[in-house]
Amino acid sequence: MIKKAVCLISGGLDSCVTANIAKNKGFEIYAITFDYGQKHRKEINCAKKIAQSVDAKKHIIFKININEFGGSSLTDESLDTELDHELSDIGKEIPITYVPGRNTVFLSIALSYAEAIDAGSIFIGVTATDYSGYPDCRPEFIKAFQKVVNIATKKGVEGKIIKINAPVLNLKKSDIIKKGKELNACFQNTWSCYVGEKKACGRCDSCLLRLKGFKESGFKDPIKYKKLPDWYIEK
Amino acid sequence: MIKKAVCLISGGLDSCVTANIAKNKGFEIYAITFDYGQKHRKEINCAKKIAQSVDAKKHIIFKININEFGGSSLTDESLDTELDHELSDIGKEIPITYVPGRNTVFLSIALSYAEAIDAGSIFIGVTATDYSGYPDCRPEFIKAFQKVVNIATKKGVEGKIIKINAPVLNLKKSDIIKKGKELNACFQNTWSCYVGEKKACGRCDSCLLRLKGFKESGFKDPIKYKKLPDWYIEK
Repeated sequence: MIKKAVCLISGGLDSCVTANIAKNKGFEIYAITFDYGQKHRKEINCAKKIAQSVDAKKHIIFKININEFGGSSLTDESLDTELDHELSDIGKEIPITYVPGRNTVFLSIALSYAEAIDAGSIFIGVTATDYSGYPDCRPEFIKAFQKVVNIATKKGVEGKIIKINAPVLNLKKSDIIKKGKELNACFQNTWSCYVGEKKACGRCDSCLLRLKGFKESGFKDPIKYKKLPDWYIEK
Repeated sequence: MIKKAVCLISGGLDSCVTANIAKNKGFEIYAITFDYGQKHRKEINCAKKIAQSVDAKKHIIFKININEFGGSSLTDESLDTELDHELSDIGKEIPITYVPGRNTVFLSIALSYAEAIDAGSIFIGVTATDYSGYPDCRPEFIKAFQKVVNIATKKGVEGKIIKINAPVLNLKKSDIIKKGKELNACFQNTWSCYVGEKKACGRCDSCLLRLKGFKESGFKDPIKYKKLPDWYIEK
């Protein structure tokens, strides 16, 4: 019997590896990518390539204007994406790039999709290690949302579960990269930079965490950077 | 200090009364209505009038294509909205009008809105008495979602709460109507019918529950019906 899974693919490293894990577990993948007005639009093109690389049965680019509420530098043109943090500062405070309720909204829509196509699994690439300090990336968030899923759905009432899988939740970035390498994940088609120009900036929190992960993993990051931090030495 | 509340206004009776309750409690209302491809589009126009009637500071009509996932007769043109149920059958099974994950999606987006505008309250007009049997209208759903809210948000991390208020959750439909009458709710601008023509059909689950409520409340339903059930006698 075919096991269907809804996979959230953002275009970043973590969701790329997560989708590869789902594929490796034998799931038929129904990919969903959110177009929420993010400034780093390049993500969406990367997501399309990632979905192809895991043989997604279908890929929905879901438009959702949570950006019209404002409140985040990732979607609000009037706010600058934070740059030039020290690595050691990342994760200490909830940053300006935080999009209110983002993962709650994304998981809810994934849930609606999963229930409509009768999929028993949802895969999301959140990670709580080497992360930016977003509250909706923590294990307790996934746990609380799973409870909502069990109660809110027709499937749940019938005693069947739609399982939220977050397989990289507790992995360090370098271990996520190692896992992806093992599964032949197409890292050249991932995008992490918040700034979203032709080359990754190498200065935003997301670039820094990614580069640190690659450095620690011993693998080379295949994408191009505008400027690499001093502590990152290419092999 | 102004207390802001995000109010979900569907255009139906329950959300109309809920919005009036929020107004009566002194909240400044930020209304949100979801355009999710529902066949009963008349709801949206009603929602606009309801938002005006409670002096909403802002009213967002939020477009969200959960209908593209399919699975519900409310949005899927190939499925008929259930008609001609007996009143006594309503609520026994989850009906074909169930939209997968709907209230989870709606509350998530309301949450994103609330956090972005720094509102401490969300009002939703779900009701678990005289209802259609949707799993995401039950008290345990609201409770589980509140837990997600507390964990998922920046506000929650800072120890502040965004409270989900469902003031008609445990009220009978007739009591909701009485409450609305007390607050001068504009019932003539509400729409409950799933079929969505010029006049309400008087045959779908939603019409039947509404008419039963009016009958029990002793008030007259001000909207027009195509056909009234035998047990409903106009006063």
